[in-house]
Amino acid sequence: MSNSVLISELAWTEYEKRLAGGRTPVLIPVGALEQHGPHLPLNCDTVIPTAVCVEAAKRIGALVAPPIEYGYKSQPRSGGGNHFPGTTSLDGHTLVLMTRDIIREFARHGVRKIAIVVGHTENLMFTTEACDLAIRDLKAQGITDMKIIHMGYWEFMTEATMHKVFPDGFPSWNLEHAGVMETSVMLHLRNSLVDFDQVPKHAPADFPPYDIHPVEPHRIPASGALSSGQTATAEKGKYMFDEYVESIAAALTKEFAL
Amino acid sequence: MSNSVLISELAWTEYEKRLAGGRTPVLIPVGALEQHGPHLPLNCDTVIPTAVCVEAAKRIGALVAPPIEYGYKSQPRSGGGNHFPGTTSLDGHTLVLMTRDIIREFARHGVRKIAIVVGHTENLMFTTEACDLAIRDLKAQGITDMKIIHMGYWEFMTEATMHKVFPDGFPSWNLEHAGVMETSVMLHLRNSLVDFDQVPKHAPADFPPYDIHPVEPHRIPASGALSSGQTATAEKGKYMFDEYVESIAAALTKEFAL
Amino acid sequence: MSNSVLISELAWTEYEKRLAGGRTPVLIPVGALEQHGPHLPLNCDTVIPTAVCVEAAKRIGALVAPPIEYGYKSQPRSGGGNHFPGTTSLDGHTLVLMTRDIIREFARHGVRKIAIVVGHTENLMFTTEACDLAIRDLKAQGITDMKIIHMGYWEFMTEATMHKVFPDGFPSWNLEHAGVMETSVMLHLRNSLVDFDQVPKHAPADFPPYDIHPVEPHRIPASGALSSGQTATAEKGKYMFDEYVESIAAALTKEFAL
Amino acid sequence: MSNSVLISELAWTEYEKRLAGGRTPVLIPVGALEQHGPHLPLNCDTVIPTAVCVEAAKRIGALVAPPIEYGYKSQPRSGGGNHFPGTTSLDGHTLVLMTRDIIREFARHGVRKIAIVVGHTENLMFTTEACDLAIRDLKAQGITDMKIIHMGYWEFMTEATMHKVFPDGFPSWNLEHAGVMETSVMLHLRNSLVDFDQVPKHAPADFPPYDIHPVEPHRIPASGALSSGQTATAEKGKYMFDEYVESIAAALTKEFAL
Amino acid sequence: MSNSVLISELAWTEYEKRLAGGRTPVLIPVGALEQHGPHLPLNCDTVIPTAVCVEAAKRIGALVAPPIEYGYKSQPRSGGGNHFPGTTSLDGHTLVLMTRDIIREFARHGVRKIAIVVGHTENLMFTTEACDLAIRDLKAQGITDMKIIHMGYWEFMTEATMHKVFPDGFPSWNLEHAGVMETSVMLHLRNSLVDFDQVPKHAPADFPPYDIHPVEPHRIPASGALSSGQTATAEKGKYMFDEYVESIAAALTKEFAL
Amino acid sequence: MSNSVLISELAWTEYEKRLAGGRTPVLIPVGALEQHGPHLPLNCDTVIPTAVCVEAAKRIGALVAPPIEYGYKSQPRSGGGNHFPGTTSLDGHTLVLMTRDIIREFARHGVRKIAIVVGHTENLMFTTEACDLAIRDLKAQGITDMKIIHMGYWEFMTEATMHKVFPDGFPSWNLEHAGVMETSVMLHLRNSLVDFDQVPKHAPADFPPYDIHPVEPHRIPASGALSSGQTATAEKGKYMFDEYVESIAAALTKEFAL
Repeated sequence: MSNSVLISELAWTEYEKRLAGGRTPVLIPVGALEQHGPHLPLNCDTVIPTAVCVEAAKRIGALVAPPIEYGYKSQPRSGGGNHFPGTTSLDGHTLVLMTRDIIREFARHGVRKIAIVVGHTENLMFTTEACDLAIRDLKAQGITDMKIIHMGYWEFMTEATMHKVFPDGFPSWNLEHAGVMETSVMLHLRNSLVDFDQVPKHAPADFPPYDIHPVEPHRIPASGALSSGQTATAEKGKYMFDEYVESIAAALTKEFAL
Repeated sequence: MSNSVLISELAWTEYEKRLAGGRTPVLIPVGALEQHGPHLPLNCDTVIPTAVCVEAAKRIGALVAPPIEYGYKSQPRSGGGNHFPGTTSLDGHTLVLMTRDIIREFARHGVRKIAIVVGHTENLMFTTEACDLAIRDLKAQGITDMKIIHMGYWEFMTEATMHKVFPDGFPSWNLEHAGVMETSVMLHLRNSLVDFDQVPKHAPADFPPYDIHPVEPHRIPASGALSSGQTATAEKGKYMFDEYVESIAAALTKEFAL
Repeated sequence: MSNSVLISELAWTEYEKRLAGGRTPVLIPVGALEQHGPHLPLNCDTVIPTAVCVEAAKRIGALVAPPIEYGYKSQPRSGGGNHFPGTTSLDGHTLVLMTRDIIREFARHGVRKIAIVVGHTENLMFTTEACDLAIRDLKAQGITDMKIIHMGYWEFMTEATMHKVFPDGFPSWNLEHAGVMETSVMLHLRNSLVDFDQVPKHAPADFPPYDIHPVEPHRIPASGALSSGQTATAEKGKYMFDEYVESIAAALTKEFAL
Repeated sequence: MSNSVLISELAWTEYEKRLAGGRTPVLIPVGALEQHGPHLPLNCDTVIPTAVCVEAAKRIGALVAPPIEYGYKSQPRSGGGNHFPGTTSLDGHTLVLMTRDIIREFARHGVRKIAIVVGHTENLMFTTEACDLAIRDLKAQGITDMKIIHMGYWEFMTEATMHKVFPDGFPSWNLEHAGVMETSVMLHLRNSLVDFDQVPKHAPADFPPYDIHPVEPHRIPASGALSSGQTATAEKGKYMFDEYVESIAAALTKEFAL
Repeated sequence: MSNSVLISELAWTEYEKRLAGGRTPVLIPVGALEQHGPHLPLNCDTVIPTAVCVEAAKRIGALVAPPIEYGYKSQPRSGGGNHFPGTTSLDGHTLVLMTRDIIREFARHGVRKIAIVVGHTENLMFTTEACDLAIRDLKAQGITDMKIIHMGYWEFMTEATMHKVFPDGFPSWNLEHAGVMETSVMLHLRNSLVDFDQVPKHAPADFPPYDIHPVEPHRIPASGALSSGQTATAEKGKYMFDEYVESIAAALTKEFAL
Repeated sequence: MSNSVLISELAWTEYEKRLAGGRTPVLIPVGALEQHGPHLPLNCDTVIPTAVCVEAAKRIGALVAPPIEYGYKSQPRSGGGNHFPGTTSLDGHTLVLMTRDIIREFARHGVRKIAIVVGHTENLMFTTEACDLAIRDLKAQGITDMKIIHMGYWEFMTEATMHKVFPDGFPSWNLEHAGVMETSVMLHLRNSLVDFDQVPKHAPADFPPYDIHPVEPHRIPASGALSSGQTATAEKGKYMFDEYVESIAAALTKEFAL
C-alpha cells in the first residue's frame, strides 16, 4: 500500500494504522484560486502550503489532508482585489464552515493534533474562526484534548533570510503578492508553470491606508502583482521553501510533543 | 505559458484569453474524501470525475476548475456510512454554499457554461441545490444567461457497457461503492494506488430499504466496500472511462452548442 | 379523550400518557406540495405517507406527527421540475432545519424511536441531513439513545408486487412520478380528488442522464406526469398501500424492538 | 375536478386556472403544535386559522395553502411555556425561512395577494420577518407588486363580541391561552376533540411582567391553560368564529380590492 | 480605579473582582436606532433602558453591559414602520445572534445572573429567542445554572402610575410610540435632546388589526409618532423612570436572590 | 434641535435634512469590549474610533452612527486572547451580519458615502466581508452608487509620529495592544478611566509565528497587555489623536469628493 503522506492516497485501513492513537498530526493546507500576476499560475497559494505540508509531514511523521483550494476574497492591498478574472473566492462564512467541518471530521477519526497551514493572507481570520468554532463544537461532543496550530507559512521566514532574499529591503508581506518570494518559491516548486518573461517590472503598488468598496480597479497595478518578482530565482525559492519546511516541522514537533 | 486545461495552472491573463467571451465551458469536479474499501485510496470520488473532466475538456475546448475534494456525508447504503476513519465529510449546507460560491465566481469572470461533474452519489442533491441558489443569485445580479449541466458521471454508462463489465448482472449503482466499476477505473487511472490483493471477496451488502440514524456499523460490511471488485481490471476501467469521457463530451457539446 | 393516533388530535396529558416512557414510536410524514399531473391533487406526496403512517401506527402502537407538507424543490427527472404552478417548495436548508427542529422537540418529550417517512424523492437527502444534525445536537444535550428510521415509503414495494402492478415492466421510480403507482394509491385513498379522465396518455418521459439549470420546460412532458397512470386502479392502489403499511409496520416493529 | 378552496386538493392545471392572473388571494395559515390544557387537542392553533381561512376563502374567491403546523416556541406568559410534552416548536430562524420560502414560491406562481393568518401569538414576529425578507427577495427578482396582509386572527374580535363572550371582563389575549375563546371555537369546530370535563377550573395565571430563562415550570399552571374555559360554549364559539370569518373576509376584500 | 457600574469603563481586573463568583448580575440594555417623531432623538429606545439599567444596577450591585444600539425592524403599529429615514434596523436573525453571543460570553466570564432589558417592542421575540439559544448552547458546554430575566422595561408601569400619567385613559403600549411616556422620560433624562415645540398634535394613529407588507407610508402619521406627547412633562418622566428603576431593581433582587 | 454629529441624538426630521441628498458621509465606528490590561477600561477599542469619527465628522460635515461596541474574538498575538474576563466577543458571522445590516439601512436612507472606522484589529476581515456583502445586496436592490471606505484608524499614523512616540523603535501594531499608543490616546480622551499606576512594566510579549487553539493562557502576559504603556502620556495621545483625525478627515474629503 501507498507510503504517501497524502491522506487522499491512502486506503482507510492504512490511514487508520497511521493515526497511531491520535498521536499523528494532520496538516491541512488552506489555499486559494487567485490571480498572481501574468507570470504565475492561479494556484500559488495552494501549491506552496501543500508542498510545505508534504515536506514537513515527511520529517515529523504527519499526514496531509487534501488542500482547500478556494479561499476568501482577494483584497486589493494584499492580493490585488477580487475583481480579476481567475480569482475565485468564497464568502467568509463558507470558508469558515468548510474548515470547521473538516477539523471536526478529523477529530472524529481520533486525530488530536492538527495544523492549519494557510497560503493566502485573506484566509487567516476565517480559518481562525473555524478553529474556534470547531473547538467549541468538539467540546460539546465531549472532545476536549484537540490542539490546533494555525499559521500563515510565510510568517516563518527569519530575518536573516529576509535580508538575503531582499537585499534592498523587504517591502511588506502584503506587497509581496506575486512578488519575489512567491515567484521564487514557485520557480523552485513548479518551474514549468512560471513564465518568467511575464514578470511585471513596475514599482511596488502604493496604497492609501484604507480599503475602498466596491473596488476601484484603476488604483491597482494592472498586472495583478503588487511588486515585481524580477529578482526572484529558483535558488532563492529553494532556500526559503526549505526554511519554511524546517521551521514549521520544528514548531510542530515542539507544540505536538512529537 | 501553460497549455493546461486546468484553471489552477494558468496565469490570469491566459485564463482570460481562454474564456473567449463566455463561450468556454468550465467543468467543476465535485468529489469526496471517503473510504473505498481496503484496496482503494480515499480520493476515488475526486480522482475519477477530475480525470473525466480533464479528458472531456481537452476534447471540447473547456477548462477544469480545482475539484471540491470534500463531499457530503457517506451513507451506509451508497457509501458504507460516515463512521469510517478517513471518510471526511461536510455538512450539507457547507457543500451547498461552497459550490454556489464557486459558480457565482465563474459567472463573474464571464463564464456562462458550467458543468458540475459529481463523483460521489451523496453530493447530488446538495450540488443540485447549489445550482439552483446560484442561478437565483445570478438573476438578482442581472445575469440570466448562465446554463449549468449537473451530473453524476456514472449515469453515462450505457447498457451495453454495463452488460460487458457486469456479465453476471449489475447489482445497483449504490452497491457499486468500491466495487467493480470504481476499482477498474482506478486501476486504469491510478494503478499504483490500488492494492488489488486487498480487494474484499465478500458478497454484496444486503440492506433493508431504509436508513438508521445513528449508523449501526455492524450492519455494514467491515471492509467498507459494498460489493466485491474482484472482477475489476484496468482494461475494463479504461473502457468505462473512455466511454464516460466521450459521452460527457458529446452531451456538453450538444447542450452548450459548442 | 380521543383515541386517535394523530398527535395533533391529542391533549398534552393524553399525549404524555401515550409516550409510555419513550417506548412509543413517533412517525413523521414528510411530503410536498407538488404538481402530479392534471389528474392528481398537489398533495399526493403528503397524503400517501401520512396515510401509511396512520395505518402503520395503528398496528404498532405508534403516534403520527403532523406532516411536513412542503418539500424540497421538484427536479425534472423525478418530479417534473420546480417551474410548474402549484409546486411550492423549500430551500434545502429550510427543510433540513424544519425536520431537525421537530426531531429535537420529540426527543425533548422523551421520544426515542422516530420514523421519518418521506413521500417525495427530492426530500430524501435533506431529511437525511436533518437526522444527522438532530442526532449530533441531541448528543450535545446528553441524549444518546435516540434511534431514527428514515425511509421513502415506496422503497418497500416488493418485486412480486412490482410485477403484479407493472405487468409490462417497471420503468423506474423516478418516472413513476404521477404514474401508475401514485395514481392507484390516490384512487384508493382519495378517490374524489382524482380526475381519471385527465390521466395523461403520453409515453414515459425520456431524459438524458443529467440535469439542466435553469430548467428547460419544453423538455419535460407538458402534463407534469413523467409516465402514464392509465393502468392505475383503486384495487392496485389498495394492494400496494396495504403492502407498504404491513412492510413498514414490520420493519419498525423489528428495528424498535416493539 | 375538485371545487375545493384548498390548494392541496387541486391539480396544478386547476390551480393555474384559479389563479386568474394573480388576482386570486392565497391565504396561508400559520399554526403550532402546542399544548392547550388537558381539554383541548394540540392542534388548536392550526385548526382555527385554517378553518377561518377556508371560510373566508369561500366568501372572497381565495385559495388556502396547507397550514404550517409547527410554530415558534411557546412562551410561559402567552402559551404556558415550551417545556410541556406535546408542544413541538421551531427555532425562530426556521419558521422565518419556512414562511419566506412559501411566500416566494406563491409569488413565482404569479400570486400577488397573500394573507398570512397566524393562529399562535408567538409566531407573529417571525412571520413578520418572513414577510419582510420575502418582499426583499422578490424585489431582487424583479417582483415589486406583491401585497401581503399579515394578522393574528383573534385581533379581529370586536369590543361588542368581547363583552358578550366575557361578560365579567376580558383578561387579556395572552391569558386567553386555552381559555374561553379557544375552547369555545374548538367546541364549534372540532367538538369531538374537546374533553369538556377536563377544562381546568383554576384562576387565571398570574405572571410578573417579565420572562425567566430557562423556564421555571412550577410558576405556570400545571394544566397548561392560562385561564379557565369553563364558560366556553359551542354557541359562543360559532359566534366568534363567524365574526372572524366575516371581518377577515371584509378586510381582505378591501385591501386586495376584490 | 473606576467605581462605575458600566462594564465598558472597568479594567478587566476590576471587572473580575466585581463578578464576585458569579453572584453579580449583568444587565444588558437592548435598544434601537429608530425615529421617534420630530421631537425626540433616534436613540430613545437605547437611552431609556440603559439609564434604567444604570440606576437599577447601583441599587442592587449589578453591572451594566454596553447597550445593543440597533434593534429589530420598526413595525407600523408599534413604531411607525421601518421606512422612515433614521430608523436603522437589523434582520431578526442578526439580532438573535448578537444577543446570544453576548450572553454566552458573559457566561464564560462566570456570570450566572443576566437581565435583558429591552427598550424597543419589536425586539422582544428576537431577544427571547436569543435567551433560548444561549441557554441551549450553554447547556451543551456544561453550564446549567444560568438564569436570565428578560423584560420590556415599560411593562413595569403600575396601574396607579398609568392613571396618573394618562388621566384621560391609556391608549395602548403600541400607540405610545413617541407619545406621552417616552417624551416624558426623555425630558427627564435628556432634556436638551427633546424639541418640545415639535411634539405632534395629531390624534392617535388608527390602525386596522393587521399589517401590510410592504408598508404603505400614507397610512401612518407623517410625524412618525403614533400618539401625541403634548401632555408629557419631565416631572411625569421622573416619576415613571423612578418607578421603573425601583420595580426592576426589586424584581431582580427577588429573582436573583440578592 | 440638536447640532450634534451623532445620528443617535438627532430627530429623524433633522437627520433627513442633514443627509443632503446622499452627499453627507456616515461614519460607523466598529469597536470591541476587550481587556486592555489592568490600567485601561474595556472600551478602548470603541472609545477611540468613536472619538476619531466625531472629530473627523465635525471637520467634514459628516454624521456618526452609534458604534458597534462588541467585536470579533480577541486573538493572543494581537489582543491577548479571548479567554480574559471582560473580553466579550461575537462570532465572526454575527459581526458580519450586524455590520452588513447597518450599511444596508443607511443605504435605504439615501446615504451613499460610508466610512467603517475599526478600532479593533480582529474585526477587520469581518467588517471587510460585511462591506462586500452589503455592496452585493445593494446591487441586487438596484443601488449601485454606494462607496465605502474601510479602515483601521491606527493605520493612519505617519512614520514621523511613530518615531516621535516610539523613540526607541516601534514594536509592531499587534504588540501595541494596551501599549503606548492606546494608553496615550486614552489618557487624552478618558483620563479618569486610566489607572496609570497599573500600567504593566513587563517586556513586550514574545510569540511564535503561529496561533494555538484552544488558547494556552500561560503563554500570554498575565496582565493582558502585550507591551508596556509606561512611556505613554496624554500629550502623546493628543498628538496621535489629532493626527488620526486630520488624516482621516483628509482621506474622506478626497475619497468622497467633499
